[in-house]
Amino acid sequence: MTSYRYAVNVTPKPGILDPQGRAVEGSLGHLGIEGVSGVRVGRRIELSVDAPDAVAARAVVERLAGDLLSNPLIEAYDIELLGEASSTVGLGAGAAGEA
Amino acid sequence: MTSYRYAVNVTPKPGILDPQGRAVEGSLGHLGIEGVSGVRVGRRIELSVDAPDAVAARAVVERLAGDLLSNPLIEAYDIELLGEASSTVGLGAGAAGEA
Repeated sequence: MTSYRYAVNVTPKPGILDPQGRAVEGSLGHLGIEGVSGVRVGRRIELSVDAPDAVAARAVVERLAGDLLSNPLIEAYDIELLGEASSTVGLGAGAAGEA
Repeated sequence: MTSYRYAVNVTPKPGILDPQGRAVEGSLGHLGIEGVSGVRVGRRIELSVDAPDAVAARAVVERLAGDLLSNPLIEAYDIELLGEASSTVGLGAGAAGEA
């Protein structure tokens, strides 16, 4: 098994009202910041998946992203692979068990 | 002026309680999803900055990220450059005006 670390970025779809983004834009004047526009506020979810390979891991993340982490009517998501690490858990015992 | 598009990813610092992450982990069983762990839920803010160059644009985003978009006590942020596009606004008139 390999452990994969993913990020799921969930953002409001274009045209969908984004009150948090408007609030940020409304605060820019108080901070004296100019030249900033098009603020969209979404969520970023980072998670680890243990799976036999990258294809299986990504399938799990796709399912999570579509079913639990985003609302497909008003939100879009994209998936980012942050890294992978071979897990040693069960490797020794597994190899012996499989022999 | 060039328009730069940035993303600011804000995540709870390690060790800080993340109730939303726990809630996601608690829902995995109902979905029949296994092998997922270490869920952290943060925010992702995308924005455009008009600035003379990349250094100036990034300085604006750094200030926004630290002062407005994150709480430095409990959250960490990182900044991602998504793209840049030359703006033609005022280019013709500006060149004439500067001559």
